Amino acid sequence: MTARLHAHQYGKAETRVVRIVRDTPRHEIRDLNVSTALRGGFDAAYLDGDQSAVLPTDTQKNMAFAYAKQHGVASPEAFATLLARHFVDDVAPVAGARVDVQEYAWVRAVVDGAEHDHTWIRSGQEVRTASVTADADGTTVIAGLRDLTVLKSTGSEFRGFLTDGYTTLAETTDRVLATSLVAQWRYAPGAELDYDATYAAARSAMLTTFATLHSLALQQTLWHMGVAVLEAVPEVVEIRFAAPNKHHFLADLSPFGLENPGEVFFAADRPYGLIEAVILRDGAEPEDTAWTRSVGGAA
Amino acid sequence: MTARLHAHQYGKAETRVVRIVRDTPRHEIRDLNVSTALRGGFDAAYLDGDQSAVLPTDTQKNMAFAYAKQHGVASPEAFATLLARHFVDDVAPVAGARVDVQEYAWVRAVVDGAEHDHTWIRSGQEVRTASVTADADGTTVIAGLRDLTVLKSTGSEFRGFLTDGYTTLAETTDRVLATSLVAQWRYAPGAELDYDATYAAARSAMLTTFATLHSLALQQTLWHMGVAVLEAVPEVVEIRFAAPNKHHFLADLSPFGLENPGEVFFAADRPYGLIEAVILRDGAEPEDTAWTRSVGGAA
Amino acid sequence: MTARLHAHQYGKAETRVVRIVRDTPRHEIRDLNVSTALRGGFDAAYLDGDQSAVLPTDTQKNMAFAYAKQHGVASPEAFATLLARHFVDDVAPVAGARVDVQEYAWVRAVVDGAEHDHTWIRSGQEVRTASVTADADGTTVIAGLRDLTVLKSTGSEFRGFLTDGYTTLAETTDRVLATSLVAQWRYAPGAELDYDATYAAARSAMLTTFATLHSLALQQTLWHMGVAVLEAVPEVVEIRFAAPNKHHFLADLSPFGLENPGEVFFAADRPYGLIEAVILRDGAEPEDTAWTRSVGGAA
Amino acid sequence: MTARLHAHQYGKAETRVVRIVRDTPRHEIRDLNVSTALRGGFDAAYLDGDQSAVLPTDTQKNMAFAYAKQHGVASPEAFATLLARHFVDDVAPVAGARVDVQEYAWVRAVVDGAEHDHTWIRSGQEVRTASVTADADGTTVIAGLRDLTVLKSTGSEFRGFLTDGYTTLAETTDRVLATSLVAQWRYAPGAELDYDATYAAARSAMLTTFATLHSLALQQTLWHMGVAVLEAVPEVVEIRFAAPNKHHFLADLSPFGLENPGEVFFAADRPYGLIEAVILRDGAEPEDTAWTRSVGGAA
Repeated sequence: MTARLHAHQYGKAETRVVRIVRDTPRHEIRDLNVSTALRGGFDAAYLDGDQSAVLPTDTQKNMAFAYAKQHGVASPEAFATLLARHFVDDVAPVAGARVDVQEYAWVRAVVDGAEHDHTWIRSGQEVRTASVTADADGTTVIAGLRDLTVLKSTGSEFRGFLTDGYTTLAETTDRVLATSLVAQWRYAPGAELDYDATYAAARSAMLTTFATLHSLALQQTLWHMGVAVLEAVPEVVEIRFAAPNKHHFLADLSPFGLENPGEVFFAADRPYGLIEAVILRDGAEPEDTAWTRSVGGAA
Repeated sequence: MTARLHAHQYGKAETRVVRIVRDTPRHEIRDLNVSTALRGGFDAAYLDGDQSAVLPTDTQKNMAFAYAKQHGVASPEAFATLLARHFVDDVAPVAGARVDVQEYAWVRAVVDGAEHDHTWIRSGQEVRTASVTADADGTTVIAGLRDLTVLKSTGSEFRGFLTDGYTTLAETTDRVLATSLVAQWRYAPGAELDYDATYAAARSAMLTTFATLHSLALQQTLWHMGVAVLEAVPEVVEIRFAAPNKHHFLADLSPFGLENPGEVFFAADRPYGLIEAVILRDGAEPEDTAWTRSVGGAA
Repeated sequence: MTARLHAHQYGKAETRVVRIVRDTPRHEIRDLNVSTALRGGFDAAYLDGDQSAVLPTDTQKNMAFAYAKQHGVASPEAFATLLARHFVDDVAPVAGARVDVQEYAWVRAVVDGAEHDHTWIRSGQEVRTASVTADADGTTVIAGLRDLTVLKSTGSEFRGFLTDGYTTLAETTDRVLATSLVAQWRYAPGAELDYDATYAAARSAMLTTFATLHSLALQQTLWHMGVAVLEAVPEVVEIRFAAPNKHHFLADLSPFGLENPGEVFFAADRPYGLIEAVILRDGAEPEDTAWTRSVGGAA
Repeated sequence: MTARLHAHQYGKAETRVVRIVRDTPRHEIRDLNVSTALRGGFDAAYLDGDQSAVLPTDTQKNMAFAYAKQHGVASPEAFATLLARHFVDDVAPVAGARVDVQEYAWVRAVVDGAEHDHTWIRSGQEVRTASVTADADGTTVIAGLRDLTVLKSTGSEFRGFLTDGYTTLAETTDRVLATSLVAQWRYAPGAELDYDATYAAARSAMLTTFATLHSLALQQTLWHMGVAVLEAVPEVVEIRFAAPNKHHFLADLSPFGLENPGEVFFAADRPYGLIEAVILRDGAEPEDTAWTRSVGGAA
């Protein structure tokens, strides 16, 4: 024998659950993409092909639909917590569970100036995310968002950087700054929260900082956005960012005898800068395992 | 010689032009994806590799940036018209030009209750489209949108359909109806238009009909949406729809002893229904060539 | 009444049908993405919501699976023809049918030097396409491929082009030429064909021409590729191309004191050139309706 | 002050570098997507907006192109190692660097039975990956692949699994097993390797096992694939898998009076199973930090 099984998890990814509340003529909708993963005593499935301890991923999918009916979807975080605790508390071989939920927002169609009762338009702004891990020791809730694309057309500079023999970039005191933000924040264990309200508060803090801070670099902007979230939501103990710097290059119109004082830009796809930061509330300890969706690496 | 060149066009696709207006502290932004295509006396480029009549696609790209500076972007339709007319009127070998523009909308970030002057969030709702064709005879303007995802959680049925030996679908009097709408409408030649206003009017007419019409089928809904646009915008002479029926299947919870009266759905990716319709104003003639982006087929 | 219904079609798009032949231990596989669309007497579904003539798209999907079992998949073209004729010949309200098939190729895994009987690796090269239209007058078969990405690292130039005040492109006598080819070709009506063999012959003719022709422009290359197909496959009467010019820009290394004689390139995503051509066999008439997947435009 | 900066990194993502070797008429090509990330003394950029220690991501991009010229691309692993060591060894503030490379394979076009000297077709099979981390203590090299889509049409079963009140899945002794494999393996530090050869050996070991092992579950298949790699490549000390179970559901043709003994399947997009495993060579210690591309979580 040359090998040993070091870690593993398995589950059902991307179950698309849409929950309608229709108790009154004014319906409600929550539109989720649910991924579940289980860790625990499943070595025999790998080593011997023995499935006797394996709760099939098909059953995990059934659970997502059944729980949406039985418990509703108060919030992505609450729904993920219910599912994760169920797997750990009710399914014997499961030692740990992770549930990731993406929520797609819908806004009500406006008809004759009034919001419609049962017709929605899908908002294409950010995807809201919730990542909940549960085991015998407790439950960790991480909220977040991804693909929140924001841009400011002034109030951003980039200069004074390190140069070497491979430098060609010019300094600038006025550029377009744009990113498609990924942010995740971890709540203190045991916090009693209105997750929709804390989500709104965190989102607003980030956007306000992005808009109002004069940016010396995306790194500095992220730092201050993180501080703003920690100040706005006391239950947040840690926040992590991954922010692509979506470059907008000033079009060179000088060959055509035209000036271009920050008016016409080429929006590039690739490459892009990618800035990451992990920010902790003073006194809080980092908690690394809950952030990683995979037991492997970037996979 | 066994072959002849029947038709051709060439151009630059997907030039990403972002235009900022910064004449006052309150900036404006228009974010475009511009594709240009030229038709005309370019046979020698194909048959003999002779480029002497060929305006390079690189030059077409330069034009898009230069025109954004020189003329601004009053609307996607107006910008596309300027570019298309330039190619036909100013570049000798060009007999016809087609300019397709996609516009990505941005909404202002709200800070302390007020819209910010130079910070935006990208609205992920529909992509606005404009397709302008120009030649010696005139200019045809087609406006439109794509990826407007709408859903109604009641007010839709589907029954009384044709059955045969391959039928398994059950009739329903209450289902989720959802689509990711593609709509394009052609304006009467020579109309003097505020394109932003007519776009808003057409969009509103479609959404109001989608919301308020009790749907017997997506076909019927599209027809009435088209009629509503023709009634709301007198300058529209033709409208075309392609609407995927994005199926939301009722989750079968009966194995778990649960009822599911229209509350929990599985949102399917594929396959999907695809419904298309072309609707003309009474008295208008169809105009087929302006609708086709390609000189080939679905390519 | 202000409007009239000019044209329409409806169907089921992207049904993913995988057909295994397992009559012997050496299995065969055909992996298809099937889209069907019906035209005919369906006005009442639009105008009145009357479904009595409507064969549901769900039933069309069922047909695709049932026919894969009953008739097998001799080729994408043959399978699409069977389905299209069925709709027209056997379903009373259907006047015309269009079936589009994409085929994903799999190659056998090689184990100990031998092709395995029932294990495959998905070939990620081109997607093969078939588009069949049927009505009372007959059947039109268009074969094709898309996303065949090819590159030559020399043997391509671009010079002698038209210049104007917006020209910045330099001439070149040696560049990288790359495209992700879309090609479709129409067979003469009534031809008795081994579609797999003619597909292979057409593909080979295109690749050989792309490789061996010294290119003066992508336009010229496409023309000669089309001629080569017409010469290689006598039953082809028309061929259409849409070829993005996937730009590979020479990296400017001069700031670092390095020369770059055609060795290091930046592969750009957008924008890209887009070259289209329609080529007919001498004596053949163009047949436009069969090429258009949609009754609308670019939708 | 309520917050502290716990971790960070920044870099340039997805620089598309194509390297042609043209020293002889028979050219060679390596097509890379390069992402670099730096860690070290960059706190001031976040906290104070002070860029004096920051090597711009633009300069990192320039490095990728310059190194492709100066050093060539012997393999993705070797190229990533050169870049990562350069950042750590030559740029003062950099304490650690991570370089991720994706390689897209091209196969030579065959003309008249012979491989062409300078024309290629992009192979759409797996993307090869290399992830190299470097710091003062040394260099860690992880090789891998992603999107290797494999399928076996028999030789796979799934039964004997745990059941509960939410079980609806039936047992099966013969199903289609398909996955789009992500595998990454870590080489022992300091190993002198022909990375192309070890890549080929690892890939072959995985494919052979996938083909020949009778599968009792995807978990078991992955375990044995990992063992096979450890046996085939002595320098591999750890291997990690993430394998979606791409479900192929047997089409239910019984309503049409048809049997379907494993012949016609519906290939589903979502949801899918997701199976992960980390396998170590006996005696090796896990090394977690090198696997994580991000300093944050799943972002």
